[in-house]
Amino acid sequence: MNVTGIIVEYNPLHNGHVYHISKTKELTNCDALVAVMSGPFVQRGEPSFVDKWVRTKMALNSGVDLVIELPVIYSKSSAEGFAFGAVSTLDATGIIDNICFGSEIGDISALYKIAEILVYEPSNYKTYLKNFLKLGDSYPSARLKALNNYILYHNLLNVNDIDIENILNNSNNILGIEYIKSILKINSKIKPYTIKRIVNKYNQKNLTGNISSATAIRKNFMNEEVKKSMPDFCYKMIKEQIENKNAPISLKDFEDIIFYILRTSDTKKLENIIDVNEGLENKLKQASEDTKDIYELIKTVKSKRYTQTRIQRILINILLNHTKDLNDKINNYPNYIRVLGFNDKGRQLIKLMKKNAKVPIITNPNKNDYNLLKLDIDAYDVYSLALNGEKRLSKSDLKSTPVYWQP
Amino acid sequence: MNVTGIIVEYNPLHNGHVYHISKTKELTNCDALVAVMSGPFVQRGEPSFVDKWVRTKMALNSGVDLVIELPVIYSKSSAEGFAFGAVSTLDATGIIDNICFGSEIGDISALYKIAEILVYEPSNYKTYLKNFLKLGDSYPSARLKALNNYILYHNLLNVNDIDIENILNNSNNILGIEYIKSILKINSKIKPYTIKRIVNKYNQKNLTGNISSATAIRKNFMNEEVKKSMPDFCYKMIKEQIENKNAPISLKDFEDIIFYILRTSDTKKLENIIDVNEGLENKLKQASEDTKDIYELIKTVKSKRYTQTRIQRILINILLNHTKDLNDKINNYPNYIRVLGFNDKGRQLIKLMKKNAKVPIITNPNKNDYNLLKLDIDAYDVYSLALNGEKRLSKSDLKSTPVYWQP
Repeated sequence: MNVTGIIVEYNPLHNGHVYHISKTKELTNCDALVAVMSGPFVQRGEPSFVDKWVRTKMALNSGVDLVIELPVIYSKSSAEGFAFGAVSTLDATGIIDNICFGSEIGDISALYKIAEILVYEPSNYKTYLKNFLKLGDSYPSARLKALNNYILYHNLLNVNDIDIENILNNSNNILGIEYIKSILKINSKIKPYTIKRIVNKYNQKNLTGNISSATAIRKNFMNEEVKKSMPDFCYKMIKEQIENKNAPISLKDFEDIIFYILRTSDTKKLENIIDVNEGLENKLKQASEDTKDIYELIKTVKSKRYTQTRIQRILINILLNHTKDLNDKINNYPNYIRVLGFNDKGRQLIKLMKKNAKVPIITNPNKNDYNLLKLDIDAYDVYSLALNGEKRLSKSDLKSTPVYWQP
Repeated sequence: MNVTGIIVEYNPLHNGHVYHISKTKELTNCDALVAVMSGPFVQRGEPSFVDKWVRTKMALNSGVDLVIELPVIYSKSSAEGFAFGAVSTLDATGIIDNICFGSEIGDISALYKIAEILVYEPSNYKTYLKNFLKLGDSYPSARLKALNNYILYHNLLNVNDIDIENILNNSNNILGIEYIKSILKINSKIKPYTIKRIVNKYNQKNLTGNISSATAIRKNFMNEEVKKSMPDFCYKMIKEQIENKNAPISLKDFEDIIFYILRTSDTKKLENIIDVNEGLENKLKQASEDTKDIYELIKTVKSKRYTQTRIQRILINILLNHTKDLNDKINNYPNYIRVLGFNDKGRQLIKLMKKNAKVPIITNPNKNDYNLLKLDIDAYDVYSLALNGEKRLSKSDLKSTPVYWQP
């Protein structure tokens, strides 16, 4: 069986994702599709717009056969950590032949070449890098120039068509390079494919007809126009969640808790949180005292070095109390796979996984799985404070069984 | 000048309070009235229904000349701690001649006699107490029986009219006894008076015409009927606060934070909070996992020994991180007096206080006062997370100047 993996957040699922799914099936000619999906917290450093269990249904209803969870330690990490976690999790299933991701450039060989250079660091590249650093370039700038020079010198890509700087300026290209880097790092047999995205900017803020960004959809959900940009069942599912006050979930829902933590914690404690460095603990604490709104706080703290999404990821780390001793986990292969949902074909895939996986497969978790799943269960416990009803109970996520989808 | 002090919460101010003010003036024949008022957290273990600055205006508009703050360490304490703090704060002003409080019994000599016995513990009383304890009575029961026997034996009160058990079963009698005990303990020259309350049960839950309990008023604020039970300006002030989303404030506003703390703190940390004893830390943590609503949580944890209000006070201690090392402060004389508001007569009182007070008078606090006022400023910081606008800024309470009231 030819199985393709995709890396998704579906926050929420829209027509661009439907296009990605159909193009992926076409390009990789696969028999089955597995999605590794972020749980309660996503890569932008935000709680997911709707609960992961709802997003699982959206995925299954859109042509995905099996949904597995991207553990939270990776899901709210930098592009590098996110990509490493996603690729490693797919690799750990033991059943994935290909991955296929959207990118702005849509050219796998260009992304592959760059990833190879960054992972293997050939000596000429390293010399360029060293020299640019000596000349006073920042690391990202020196790396870009070194890549450019190395590729030009070795005539590795058709330089008339390709502008390395432009490639590295687009977030989905960067993610794509990170996916390939991860494949190379863990020596995975997974073959990467890419398709050209039909929306260029993933954080475009306005609705743009049939194909809008997830950011635009979240921002404009109360606008009927939004209907156009997503499958009807997704729209209805989200509407239902909104009616039950289980959506939209945003950082705003955790504003009081985050302010409370920042105002009442000493800076020593904050300093111990993942990615809180260089005195950021003081800036965060001060901002929590001088502002009255989470977005105002983020605006006050962000800088060229600490971008808005990085600050948001840090706030999620603070909210989840993810301390620096957990840093290792971001660079380590996952030690479990959690199944969120499947259809009949997905059920076959689970059987296959159980034979081939490199780590335990958790389908119906029980109390004994708590230690293994701890970070995810605890993260859901925090997320659930923004929900209504039974989901608010602690460890509800440990008692949840996967979605079985019959079309 | 004959100055009377009253001990209030005005949560919110209603006709019963207006009656208390006018009767107090009549009974003590005073030239000026000083109220010591709870700040952001009240004795029932709840955040105040409306902001203390609004309640200060209500007090001044109802005939109080000077409002000073009951420090938070006392305001959310047991009856004993609350009473001690309130009486000590009034005493510390150096200008109070009388206090006058409402009680169910309305008979100062009965309350005084009981308070004297409890403070001085005459040897006969102590013998009774010891014997009842030996016979297996609980402390409250042994104390009641010892009091009864001692008073009967010495024919101290007209026993045909007075039932000690009934006296001690009424919360305002108990508070009154505690006020007098505090006067005796600190050897204050303040003379206590009491007036009979016209509402018997202070936690009556239904509106009862002109005179309703504050509990009933809070519970039924959306009911127009409530208008009848309070001065018109109070009703309007609260309506305005509700429109600005600054009221009603309740434990519900701190539900997420309290659940967050309980779920994410280890029991060692919880055990260190004031009044968390006998394994209550485990019960609280478990309840935070098994329930999804703050009132459900309280219901789960409460017992005969840990009553609802006691649990609520403990939750406030958890919210404010008031650890056991602060216990001493509850039994100590206050070390400052914070002025919340005054009218022209109140301004004269402040001048008098500045001459006679036993502790510093803080009228317009500044940065340097933070250490002195820390617990109150920090408590307001937490309270303000339930408010809108500028008040949400940290240490806003340190920058607030008192209300000056011109009728």
